[in-house]
Amino acid sequence: MKSGPDLKQYLERQRATVEKELERLLPAEDVPPAELHKAMRYSAMSPGKRLRPILALMGCEAVGGKPERALRAGCAFELVHAYSLVHDDLPAMDDAALRRGRPTVHKAFGEAAAILAGDALLTLAFEVVAGAPVEPARLAAELARAAGSQGMVGGQTVDLAMEGKPATEKELEALHRWKTGALIRGAVVCGGICGRGAEAELGALSDWGWLAGLAFQVADDLLDVEKTAAETGKDAGGDAVAGKATYPAILGVEGARAKARDLARRAGEAAAALPSGGRLRELAAYFVERNS
Amino acid sequence: MKSGPDLKQYLERQRATVEKELERLLPAEDVPPAELHKAMRYSAMSPGKRLRPILALMGCEAVGGKPERALRAGCAFELVHAYSLVHDDLPAMDDAALRRGRPTVHKAFGEAAAILAGDALLTLAFEVVAGAPVEPARLAAELARAAGSQGMVGGQTVDLAMEGKPATEKELEALHRWKTGALIRGAVVCGGICGRGAEAELGALSDWGWLAGLAFQVADDLLDVEKTAAETGKDAGGDAVAGKATYPAILGVEGARAKARDLARRAGEAAAALPSGGRLRELAAYFVERNS
Repeated sequence: MKSGPDLKQYLERQRATVEKELERLLPAEDVPPAELHKAMRYSAMSPGKRLRPILALMGCEAVGGKPERALRAGCAFELVHAYSLVHDDLPAMDDAALRRGRPTVHKAFGEAAAILAGDALLTLAFEVVAGAPVEPARLAAELARAAGSQGMVGGQTVDLAMEGKPATEKELEALHRWKTGALIRGAVVCGGICGRGAEAELGALSDWGWLAGLAFQVADDLLDVEKTAAETGKDAGGDAVAGKATYPAILGVEGARAKARDLARRAGEAAAALPSGGRLRELAAYFVERNS
Repeated sequence: MKSGPDLKQYLERQRATVEKELERLLPAEDVPPAELHKAMRYSAMSPGKRLRPILALMGCEAVGGKPERALRAGCAFELVHAYSLVHDDLPAMDDAALRRGRPTVHKAFGEAAAILAGDALLTLAFEVVAGAPVEPARLAAELARAAGSQGMVGGQTVDLAMEGKPATEKELEALHRWKTGALIRGAVVCGGICGRGAEAELGALSDWGWLAGLAFQVADDLLDVEKTAAETGKDAGGDAVAGKATYPAILGVEGARAKARDLARRAGEAAAALPSGGRLRELAAYFVERNS
């Protein structure tokens, strides 16, 4: 199996495929109500890794399917991800003015427009998945469960409730399982459904999703610590993030690094059970080695 | 065809059936995250006519189907209706403190919880419709189009943009077609799909939906005028609502009344083309004669 550069090229190629499809699926800016469609596009077409739709393509390939069969389902997960960022940034939630250096949707379009654009993106996600070429009703049910009150929205609820409070490792894991894990797992499993994977293969994709999703999150926490250390010019370690529930704060930097590597290794084992799981194994390793 | 009392009994019986199913479909209050599930239930189980799900049952019966086959699809439309009220009441939107005499969701649970409860209700609607026994993917697509950026959410966007401005009859009709018409039409058409209606029958249900939906709205505007007149003790007529875009303001009270009756008559004609459209014809007439 080839390492680094190959995977990066693959991810970049799939990102371009996904963005072309998103461009096609979103209503044009001049279709009324134009202001709403502008806000939806501002959110969904803003720069991003397109991780969730690429995972759907990879899940489909891992069971031997043609990736384009998972394109609509993948884009539906991206639209849900986009809506969740718009609503999470609202003044009543995280109250964020910037996202990746650009004004957040409510700063650019107003708060009412941001609420409505989020609602419309979530609704569009289900219109898109309902038009998928393979098992659309099953995909819609998977997307809804991943995104709903016992998935992503449940995770955001718990996150707001935990704010400023110390958390145990168990509580943190439960939070991430809902807030980001459910959508990552859902995307790769739906890819497998689009590729007509056997139930055992979907089970392996599900395992990969939970493990790699959590590895991604632990690595994210570690990147935050390193960024903070670089910015403040001192070793941030666990102290700089004390009080905030993160893996380095609970396990220490070395402990968190070991946990991320262990999760990626176990995700790799799950991928090894798949007919063409090589790239997923590689991606899990990349999650914990990346530096952005 | 029997008139008034029979129809009222029928609506009351169907309302009870719908509420029992909603009760079953919503996560229990003690399922984590409990606060989110409490807010969802507070919204979705609050007293209401359950018009949209009953229309789904009636659309199913009108094409000769057993109404219970449309129960899940109907409840999905009710969940979308419930979420839309929660988000429309938010401070950034209509900023409403009370709905039917009870504190709105953000007043009772906080603004973040209200945004998330709305998001979760919308998501649950698609999980529910994805489990429908007949053509779930088609139903999900219909629901998404009715609720989305060129349906209900588009209508709310236009409504906010029109606020405080005078409107022509044509603009008002376009607004209502999106804001309330799309969901009413979608519910009755989805009922027909659940009843395995022929395309021509679904076309007749669609016509009924647009016409009766608009009749309902014009009648609503008239009820508001009468309520205002009763409360202020003077004849409100068209003057009291001047500046606000309503049918009585544009057409005068008598003109609006004539329009509502004409729409109901045309809806009745559409229903007459259906195998068992009697109740839908009766309901359209009831829309413009009701006094609450």
